[in-house]
Amino acid sequence: MSESAKKIRAGILGASGYTGAELVRLLALHPHVEIVLLTADRKAGQPIADVFPHLATTDLPDLMAVDEVEWPGLELDVVFCALPHATSQEIIKGILHATGHGFIDEMIIESPSDYANAIHGSVKVIDLSADFRLRDQDVYQKWYGDEHRAPELQKEAVYGLTELNREDITRARLVACPGCYPTAALLTLVPLLQSRVIAKGNIIIDAKSGVSGAGRSLKEANLFTEVSEAMHPYGIAAHRHSPEIEQELTKALGEQVYVTFTPHLVPMNRGELETIYVQYADGKTVADLRAVLEEQYADDPFVTVAPEGVVPATRQVRGSNHCVINVFEDRVPGRAILVVVIDNLVKGSSGQAIQNMNLMFGLEETLSLEQLPLFP
Amino acid sequence: MSESAKKIRAGILGASGYTGAELVRLLALHPHVEIVLLTADRKAGQPIADVFPHLATTDLPDLMAVDEVEWPGLELDVVFCALPHATSQEIIKGILHATGHGFIDEMIIESPSDYANAIHGSVKVIDLSADFRLRDQDVYQKWYGDEHRAPELQKEAVYGLTELNREDITRARLVACPGCYPTAALLTLVPLLQSRVIAKGNIIIDAKSGVSGAGRSLKEANLFTEVSEAMHPYGIAAHRHSPEIEQELTKALGEQVYVTFTPHLVPMNRGELETIYVQYADGKTVADLRAVLEEQYADDPFVTVAPEGVVPATRQVRGSNHCVINVFEDRVPGRAILVVVIDNLVKGSSGQAIQNMNLMFGLEETLSLEQLPLFP
Amino acid sequence: MSESAKKIRAGILGASGYTGAELVRLLALHPHVEIVLLTADRKAGQPIADVFPHLATTDLPDLMAVDEVEWPGLELDVVFCALPHATSQEIIKGILHATGHGFIDEMIIESPSDYANAIHGSVKVIDLSADFRLRDQDVYQKWYGDEHRAPELQKEAVYGLTELNREDITRARLVACPGCYPTAALLTLVPLLQSRVIAKGNIIIDAKSGVSGAGRSLKEANLFTEVSEAMHPYGIAAHRHSPEIEQELTKALGEQVYVTFTPHLVPMNRGELETIYVQYADGKTVADLRAVLEEQYADDPFVTVAPEGVVPATRQVRGSNHCVINVFEDRVPGRAILVVVIDNLVKGSSGQAIQNMNLMFGLEETLSLEQLPLFP
Amino acid sequence: MSESAKKIRAGILGASGYTGAELVRLLALHPHVEIVLLTADRKAGQPIADVFPHLATTDLPDLMAVDEVEWPGLELDVVFCALPHATSQEIIKGILHATGHGFIDEMIIESPSDYANAIHGSVKVIDLSADFRLRDQDVYQKWYGDEHRAPELQKEAVYGLTELNREDITRARLVACPGCYPTAALLTLVPLLQSRVIAKGNIIIDAKSGVSGAGRSLKEANLFTEVSEAMHPYGIAAHRHSPEIEQELTKALGEQVYVTFTPHLVPMNRGELETIYVQYADGKTVADLRAVLEEQYADDPFVTVAPEGVVPATRQVRGSNHCVINVFEDRVPGRAILVVVIDNLVKGSSGQAIQNMNLMFGLEETLSLEQLPLFP
Repeated sequence: MSESAKKIRAGILGASGYTGAELVRLLALHPHVEIVLLTADRKAGQPIADVFPHLATTDLPDLMAVDEVEWPGLELDVVFCALPHATSQEIIKGILHATGHGFIDEMIIESPSDYANAIHGSVKVIDLSADFRLRDQDVYQKWYGDEHRAPELQKEAVYGLTELNREDITRARLVACPGCYPTAALLTLVPLLQSRVIAKGNIIIDAKSGVSGAGRSLKEANLFTEVSEAMHPYGIAAHRHSPEIEQELTKALGEQVYVTFTPHLVPMNRGELETIYVQYADGKTVADLRAVLEEQYADDPFVTVAPEGVVPATRQVRGSNHCVINVFEDRVPGRAILVVVIDNLVKGSSGQAIQNMNLMFGLEETLSLEQLPLFP
Repeated sequence: MSESAKKIRAGILGASGYTGAELVRLLALHPHVEIVLLTADRKAGQPIADVFPHLATTDLPDLMAVDEVEWPGLELDVVFCALPHATSQEIIKGILHATGHGFIDEMIIESPSDYANAIHGSVKVIDLSADFRLRDQDVYQKWYGDEHRAPELQKEAVYGLTELNREDITRARLVACPGCYPTAALLTLVPLLQSRVIAKGNIIIDAKSGVSGAGRSLKEANLFTEVSEAMHPYGIAAHRHSPEIEQELTKALGEQVYVTFTPHLVPMNRGELETIYVQYADGKTVADLRAVLEEQYADDPFVTVAPEGVVPATRQVRGSNHCVINVFEDRVPGRAILVVVIDNLVKGSSGQAIQNMNLMFGLEETLSLEQLPLFP
Repeated sequence: MSESAKKIRAGILGASGYTGAELVRLLALHPHVEIVLLTADRKAGQPIADVFPHLATTDLPDLMAVDEVEWPGLELDVVFCALPHATSQEIIKGILHATGHGFIDEMIIESPSDYANAIHGSVKVIDLSADFRLRDQDVYQKWYGDEHRAPELQKEAVYGLTELNREDITRARLVACPGCYPTAALLTLVPLLQSRVIAKGNIIIDAKSGVSGAGRSLKEANLFTEVSEAMHPYGIAAHRHSPEIEQELTKALGEQVYVTFTPHLVPMNRGELETIYVQYADGKTVADLRAVLEEQYADDPFVTVAPEGVVPATRQVRGSNHCVINVFEDRVPGRAILVVVIDNLVKGSSGQAIQNMNLMFGLEETLSLEQLPLFP
Repeated sequence: MSESAKKIRAGILGASGYTGAELVRLLALHPHVEIVLLTADRKAGQPIADVFPHLATTDLPDLMAVDEVEWPGLELDVVFCALPHATSQEIIKGILHATGHGFIDEMIIESPSDYANAIHGSVKVIDLSADFRLRDQDVYQKWYGDEHRAPELQKEAVYGLTELNREDITRARLVACPGCYPTAALLTLVPLLQSRVIAKGNIIIDAKSGVSGAGRSLKEANLFTEVSEAMHPYGIAAHRHSPEIEQELTKALGEQVYVTFTPHLVPMNRGELETIYVQYADGKTVADLRAVLEEQYADDPFVTVAPEGVVPATRQVRGSNHCVINVFEDRVPGRAILVVVIDNLVKGSSGQAIQNMNLMFGLEETLSLEQLPLFP
C-alpha cells in the first residue's frame, strides 16, 4: 500500500473488552488506519467513552451489535476480531461471505500466487481469539469442547506469530494471533528446537501473568480483593495454551514435542513472564543457545536478547510491543534457564495483531507500535 | 521553526530520575527532537539501558556528569532540567552563560519585543524543579531554606502552566514547570477565581498522588513494603506546593488567596487526583462553575471537562498528558466539589514540559503527546 | 457472664461475605464463643472452606440457607447479621420472634432495669448492615428507597459505636453497628462537637477506603484491573453514610449538623483514612482539640491519639481493631485538619461488632481483638 | 515448663527489621513470654513505636545497641537473633559466653542426656539468619564468602524445620531457622524423597515471593515504583537457598541431590509460592505422592495437604503460620507438579522460630500462632 491519503478502514469486533480497547489505543497512533466500526453486543448503542473513559478523547464510532452491522456498505479493509473464544468462528465466516468473498477452498488454488490473487481486494481478518489457532479439528474439539464450525477457515488460517511466520502472514487473508503464553514461549523455544541446541524432552514452562489476561468479565476470582497481595497457579496441566505451544513446537522440530506448562496469576495489570527450563542437546552449551537466539532476532525491532547476565523484567516491556529474552546456565549440569517477558495485551495480543496487519498491508512492521514502555 | 530536517537538539539533565526517563519516553515519539545529552552524576559513564532497562531499545547518548559537559560544542537548542530542587539554580545560570548568552538583566530591556530579541537564538531552558516557580525571593527562602542563587533568573522565569500561560511561555527563554499538585489545582481553580464564580475563602484541596511523585531516591518510606496496601497523608499544612498554588491563585484573582492543602500517598505508581472543596460566590451555582470550565477548555487538546455526573478517575489519564475535571454540587448549600485527575509524571511534569517546549519552538502543542492513556 | 465452660453460642448470617469471614477469623481467638451457625443462601450446603479457603483449618458448621435454620433448637445466644442492606430487617424481626421473644414495645417498659430484664435470656442481635442505623423512618426511606419493615426495632436498636455508647450497648438486645466511614468520622468529631471546641459549620470529611469495603459481589468496578494502579471518588454528595454521620453529630451537639462527605476508592484491600477539615469554635486552638481527644480516649484500648506531629497511616491498623487519630493546625488561620485511620473490616465492621458483643455479655471488651496489626 | 506466673524472658536482636517486628507481633499473643530486650543498632535509644508505628500500642522496652546490652542482668531465657547474615555468628557466640555457658564442645558430651544437661538453664538461641543453616564449613564459605567464625556452633546448631526435626529441636540450645524458600521446598520434598516416590534427578523449584523477603533495607530494587505492576526472577542459578535445600534433601535421601531453583519477586508484601516439578520414581503415581504427604502431615497443626484438585493460593496463609501443599499429575507422562504456599514472614521466618521456641520450652507448639490468615 502506498502511504497515500486513503486510509485502511478497520473494524474491531468485541471492542468492550481489554484487547479491543488496546487495539483502539494503539491504532490511534497509526498514520494509515481509520477505525470505522466498533461492536460490543451488550453495550450496543453506547459511545466508547461510556465503556472506556480513557478513550473519551478520541473520535470513534459508537458501539453497535455485531448482528446489526451492514458489512458491505462499510467497505472494511480489515477486521480485528477480539471476541470470546468459540464465538468468532461463525462471525468470521459470515464476514468473509458478507463482504462478497467466498472461502479459499471454494476456489481452485494451485500455487501460492493463486492464493494471493484470491484474496486480493478482500477484507482481511485478524482474529485474536483461540478459534483458529489449532490446526487439528480433533485437538480443537478436545480442548474447546465443541466441533469447529468453520473447518475450512481453520485450515486456511495462518498462525500469526509475526517474527517466525512473516512470509505466510504477509499473504494471509485470515490470521489467527497466538495466545499470550504461546507468544512468549514460542519466540523463545522455536529457534532453539529448530537449530537442535536443546533436547525436546523435559521442557518446563512456568508462566506468570498479570490479571488483564483474564479479560473484563465478572468473575469473583478477578476481584481486586481476591487478587491483590496474592498469587496462585491455575489450569495446572490443563491450560488450553498447552496444545497450541505443542503444535507449533512439533511443527518447528518435525517431531512430536510435549511441554509441561503451568500459568500463574500475579497481582499486576499487565505483563507476562515465562521461566523456561530446558536441557541442552548433546554437546551444546549455554553459548550455543545464546548464539541461536541472537542470530534469530538480530534484525527484529521488537524481540531483544538481553546482554549476558541481565535478567528480563516485565517492567521493561509494559505497554509496549517488546519482547525480551535471556538465557542462563543452570547450576545443574546439562540444563539452561530461559526467561522471557512481554506485555500480554500488546505483544501477547493487540500489538502483535497490529504488527500482523502492517505486514498484511505491506506497511512498515513497527507502525503505531513505536511507543516505549511505560515505567514506572 | 519550520518542520525541516534539522532537529531540535535537546539535553536532559538528571536523566536517571523518573521525570528524566519520562522525558526520554515521550520525546522518542517526537518527530522534530533529537536527544544529544543525558546527564546523571552518580551514574556517569553508564548507558541509559543500565539505569532504565525499559529504554534499552532506544538509541541514546551515554549518561555523563553535568560538570563534564562541554556546552558550546553541543549546540543545544533546549535543555530540560530534571534535577533535584536547589541544584538547578546555578546549573541553569551556568548553562545560559556557557552557551554564550548572558542574563536578561545584563541587557537593556525596554519592551517585550526586546525581550524576544534578546533570547533569539539562545538555548531555551525548561526547568522541572521547584527552583524558579516562586516569584518572591522571601517566599522562596522561607519554604526552601536557602537564599536563591539566581534571583535575576527567578524574576525572568515564566510559570509553565501551559493552558493558562501560553503567550508568555511562547516567548520565554526559561520556563519553570509547575509542580504536579499545582498543575491540577490551578487548571481547576484559576478560571473559577478569575471569573469570580467561587469565593476566595475556604478553598480546601485534598490531594492524592501515586508514589512516582516521590522520585527514585532511596527512602524507607518509599519501599514497596511500606507503601503497598497502605495510605497516609504527608506534609500536612507544610507542603511546598502550597505557596506555589497560592501565588498563582493570588495572581489570578488580584487579591491574596490562601488554601488548605493536604497531599496523600496512594499505593499506585502514577496518577494524581485532587478533590477540591469550594464555596460559590454570591448567587452562583454549580452550573456557573461548569460553564466557566467548559468555556475555558473548549479548545484545549489536553484538558477535558467531563460530562455532568461522570466522576474523573486516575485510570483515565495514566501515561497520558490529559487532565479531566468535573464539578459536583454538594449537599451542603453553597458548596461545590471539584475533582481533577492527571498523570503526575506526564501532565504533572514531563509531558507539560514537552508541551511547553512545543510552544517555545512554534510547534504543534500536541507533538509527541498524542498517546492515549494506558488502561488497564 | 462467668468465664465458665459454657460458651456463647453464636450464629453468623451472611457468612460468605467479607465481613462474615472476618467475624469467623476474629472469633476463632475468642475463649468464650462457639460458632454454631453459618448461613449463606447462594452457597448453602457448602463447607466454609469451599467459599473461604483461608478458613479451611478451622472446625465450623457447613453453610446453610437462612430459611432453613431451625432457630429454637440452636439455642443461640447471639446472632451477627452480615447480610446486605435491606435484607436484615425482616430476618432479624423473625429471629427475635422465632427464638420466643417478642419486641420490646410489646412489653411494658418503665425503667432501664425492666429493659434489662425483658431481654434477659434473649438472643442478642448484632447487625452489621445499615438497616437499623438510622433512627428516623423518613430519613431511612429517603436514602434507602423503601419503607422500613421493622420500625419498632428501628426505634429499639442501639447505635453500636462502642467507645461513645457503651452504656446503651451493654443493655441492648439489638445493636446496629455503624458504617465504616461513620465509625472513623464520629470517633473523631463527636467529642469535639460535644465539647464545643469546633464549629458546626464547614465540616468536610474526605474519606479514602480500601476495596474490601465494596464487598465480594461481582461488579466490574471492583475487578483488579479496574482498581489497581488507580483511584477515584464515588458517591459524591450522595453516599448513604452522610445521613448516618449527620444523625449522630446532630445528636451529639443537640443542633442540626451537616457535613460534606466524599469517599474515595483506593487500591488496597483494607484500610480507611479520613482527612477531616474543621473550623475552631471561637477562641479555641489546636491544643484544645488535642486535649479533648486525649481526655476522651485516655483509657480506651482501641482508640489512640497519636503524639503531636505524627501522621496516622492505615498500615498502623491493618487487620486490627485499632483506631488512630491526630489533629494538626492548618496554615489557614482558624482551621484544623484531623486524620483518622481504621481497618474498615475490623474497627469499621466485624471487630467493632465483636467489641459490642463483649460488652453485651459482660466480657472484657478486648477479647479476641488483641491481635496487633499486620505489617508489612 | 509449668504454665506458672513466671514468664519466659525473651530478647530480640535486630528488632528494627521486618522479621523482628513480626516476632513482636506474634509473641504479643503468647501467654508465657515476656519481651525484655529489643536491639537495633542504628535505631538505638528509640522506642519501637518510632520505628514501627503499628506496634505503638504494645508495652515494650526501647531499642538499644547490641553492644550495650548487659547480658547477665537480663536473665534471658531465649534470644531470637534476627540480624543480617554474617553478623550473627560472633554475637551468638558472645551471648552464649556472656550468659555464662561455654560451648558444648568444651564439655564432655557422651550421650544425648548429657547434652540436655549441659544446656539446662542456659539461654537458648533461635537464629533467623543464614549463619548456622549450612553444616559444611566449605559450603558456607563458598556461598557466603567468608570463613565461618563460630564453627563449633555451626556443628552444634540444629536445623529448625519444625515438622521434620522436632526431636532435635526440642533438645537444642541453638536452632538455625530455615530460609523461607527452603521451608516450603523441604516440607514438600523431604517426605517424597525419603519415601522414594520421586526421582532424585530433574527436581525444579520455581519459587515466587512477596517483597518483605527482601527486608527493610534501602535498595532501589525494592522501591514501590520498581516493584509494583512488575515481576522478575533474581539470583538465577545462584541463590544462597540452593545449597541449603540441597543439604537437607541430600540428608533426607542419603545420596547427593541437586535442584534447579529460581526465585521470583512478586508485587505483594507477603506470601511465597513454589511450583515444584518432579519425576515419579519407577512405578509410582500421583496417588503415591499424595498418600505420602497426607500421612506425613496427618497430625500437624500447620501443614495441610489440600483436597485433590484444589490449588493452593498465598491468600490462604497470609499472616499465619500455615503451609498448604498439593500435588497434581502432569500431562507429560511420568511427571508431577507440586504447589506449596506459606507466608514468608511467618512459617518462612518468625512464626516457625516461635514454633521452635515452643518446642524448646516444652510448650504447646501452636502457642501464639493460632491466628487465622488475614483475607482479604
